[in-house]
Amino acid sequence: MQIPEILVIESQHRPGNLGRILTAIGECGIMVDHITLMRRAQDKSVWEITVEMDEAARQQLNARLADLPYGKLLGRSDRVFNRHRGGKIETVSKVPLDSIQQLRDVYTPGVARVCLEIQKHPEEVWDYTNIGNTVGIITNGTAILGLGHIGAIPGLPVMEGKAMIYAKFVGISGVPILLNDTEPRKVIDAVLAIESSFGAIHLEDIAAPACFEVEETLAANLAKPVMQDDQHGTAVVTLGALLTATRRVQRELQDSVIGQIGLGAAGIGIAQLLLRFGVKQLFGTDLRAEALARLERLGGKRATLSEVMQKADIVIATSGVKGLIKPELVRKGQLIFALSNPEAEIEPRLALEHGAVFATDGRSVNNALGFPALFRGALDARAKRFTHEMYLAAAQKLAELAPPDELLPHVLDKSVHLQVAEAVKAAATKS
Amino acid sequence: MQIPEILVIESQHRPGNLGRILTAIGECGIMVDHITLMRRAQDKSVWEITVEMDEAARQQLNARLADLPYGKLLGRSDRVFNRHRGGKIETVSKVPLDSIQQLRDVYTPGVARVCLEIQKHPEEVWDYTNIGNTVGIITNGTAILGLGHIGAIPGLPVMEGKAMIYAKFVGISGVPILLNDTEPRKVIDAVLAIESSFGAIHLEDIAAPACFEVEETLAANLAKPVMQDDQHGTAVVTLGALLTATRRVQRELQDSVIGQIGLGAAGIGIAQLLLRFGVKQLFGTDLRAEALARLERLGGKRATLSEVMQKADIVIATSGVKGLIKPELVRKGQLIFALSNPEAEIEPRLALEHGAVFATDGRSVNNALGFPALFRGALDARAKRFTHEMYLAAAQKLAELAPPDELLPHVLDKSVHLQVAEAVKAAATKS
Repeated sequence: MQIPEILVIESQHRPGNLGRILTAIGECGIMVDHITLMRRAQDKSVWEITVEMDEAARQQLNARLADLPYGKLLGRSDRVFNRHRGGKIETVSKVPLDSIQQLRDVYTPGVARVCLEIQKHPEEVWDYTNIGNTVGIITNGTAILGLGHIGAIPGLPVMEGKAMIYAKFVGISGVPILLNDTEPRKVIDAVLAIESSFGAIHLEDIAAPACFEVEETLAANLAKPVMQDDQHGTAVVTLGALLTATRRVQRELQDSVIGQIGLGAAGIGIAQLLLRFGVKQLFGTDLRAEALARLERLGGKRATLSEVMQKADIVIATSGVKGLIKPELVRKGQLIFALSNPEAEIEPRLALEHGAVFATDGRSVNNALGFPALFRGALDARAKRFTHEMYLAAAQKLAELAPPDELLPHVLDKSVHLQVAEAVKAAATKS
Repeated sequence: MQIPEILVIESQHRPGNLGRILTAIGECGIMVDHITLMRRAQDKSVWEITVEMDEAARQQLNARLADLPYGKLLGRSDRVFNRHRGGKIETVSKVPLDSIQQLRDVYTPGVARVCLEIQKHPEEVWDYTNIGNTVGIITNGTAILGLGHIGAIPGLPVMEGKAMIYAKFVGISGVPILLNDTEPRKVIDAVLAIESSFGAIHLEDIAAPACFEVEETLAANLAKPVMQDDQHGTAVVTLGALLTATRRVQRELQDSVIGQIGLGAAGIGIAQLLLRFGVKQLFGTDLRAEALARLERLGGKRATLSEVMQKADIVIATSGVKGLIKPELVRKGQLIFALSNPEAEIEPRLALEHGAVFATDGRSVNNALGFPALFRGALDARAKRFTHEMYLAAAQKLAELAPPDELLPHVLDKSVHLQVAEAVKAAATKS
């Protein structure tokens, strides 16, 4: 598996030397993600070069760099680890606490009045506590990123990452909850036991098919928004990107034949949303009979991989399998969304070379554009559940806000998140 | 029950008028907690006067104020509610998120490396996440403040209050967790299901005797600090105050006869800590046979209320019953700690009038001096459990830091919390 790493490379400060080093890296089949100048002294520069590589590529690169007269590998940077040191989120106080009187208002004895008021009028918990901004980010650790079942505790940096994004973009207090048990029934029971703590429930990185049962059961039993992000967050952002891409090539998404490769949480979420959006023909393939049956229940049709590639105008792959789409299967005029992270089913460049009219990978379809606005909008509407109308509204707003040459709006643009949240809130209020 | 309220009173701006208004309030048997000048215009002042009163006193006051020529009740202030609006805590990001490169380091794809590192070396979750600062503040709502079983959701403002204090004084991220079920076994199961989310477990406002079973079972099953604050937090602060008070009257706490009235969570926690501290004679009374049996198992002796008052050099009351100690029961030379909030078993003034050498109520024994430093110290030591040595170290440090004329140090002094935390950490490391 390819994991991002940061190489620290010293180069002699001469015209062309950085280019030669990057060329050497490229010749090992390694993609460069980012470059930062760390320092420049006398005639030397030290660069942090972020790359994605596997073990074989690393060994090749080590050998290659040892031969270079103009560059030297000093080591690997701990920048990613340094940025994680001590964690990425914290809880802070929103009220001043500088005098005994303030303390007595917000703690004992004053707080007693607020408790009694909420006991009398339970809905006022939304006014006098932070619950209307609080989302439980809950995982059982069975499908952390593309890494698989590595456990809930190793998944905590991902949950903190979600909480960090919530805090930065939409002012939501995300609360990572790591479950010890993985079985669906135990996951459900654990969430039911603690759900009062949260205004809404964000399920994260729970493997399919357990995730479907968990989400459906919780949504049916709770009068608050429940969403598995891997399904619906991803689906919303994907639909946004599909709307932009089809608009660009002047096609109608509804009238296009959709072919899906991989029907896990993301694939099923996408299928469900596309069918609700009005797509009439949707074929899907997966190795698991259970996944195919689920697709059929939603209104899609099962197919083989090669049938999917033959029939589809638009191919959406969420299989987690690198290189699954052989370039020769790509048909002229297809739109290819090879979304598996960090390694796509087909490199966009290859797909385009083989006739695709449009191709992208998961980097351009950033899931972080989905969940913050979805939950902000749902909480602001005090919605009792997520509806397809809310998902569709978010996707349409994302497509509307995409700059002319981009598939989606910029993820770091806070106003995007707030506008999408407004659209979600409006849809929730209507439905 | 007396609940704090804030009266908004207008007075003519003349010498003596404020005094007359406060006298009138006093004549209704109402204690004044705090006064703030809100505005002064022409010849009028508007005051916010925080008082504690029950319904009968309020009616008396209304009549009394209507008669005053120099003051007018404008209404009641919403200051306490206003300060609660939107809640008291929020989650924020600790890392910058201003560029795509930063996002890629702390979110996907960079975060994958950190997850894999933690999978390989689980203890590194303490280095690369906020877990070492994270305490679950868990309640089932069965004993919220002195209000009783009002439910977990109405208790949320208290849990947020605890989290606010953690954040302000010791940088701990407190996570309020509201449990739907109240039975001990279900509380235990719920905590066991989610405990991986927290570096330590703070149990709050769980009624006795369930709280004992819950705490003991969790502490026995988890390799992390678990503490019911109502028991041990209160016990630590009480012991600190007892050490200061006995020092002031030149007595030895160990050699004093202790009498306890009320053996709920707080009473039992205090008894346990005093016996560990070395107190040789401890009598206790309670209406519940179960509570008396528990005291005897700890090494205390059961007694009636009048026996307690007869034998004890130091009386500690945590019964929750206003006025339970009749003044005529007070013996000359006794130290009286009537700790029930908001209404003490005997007013300190009355106890002193009847011969007590020292008397205080719960206002002077602020629980907020306990839990922040206890958990900070335990987390910093990466302690696997709380020990009596840690509790004793905290109490002794509190007594040491008390200013000459005070029972305990100032609760808003952050350096106090940090010094106590250091003492707790040292005790944890030693034991």
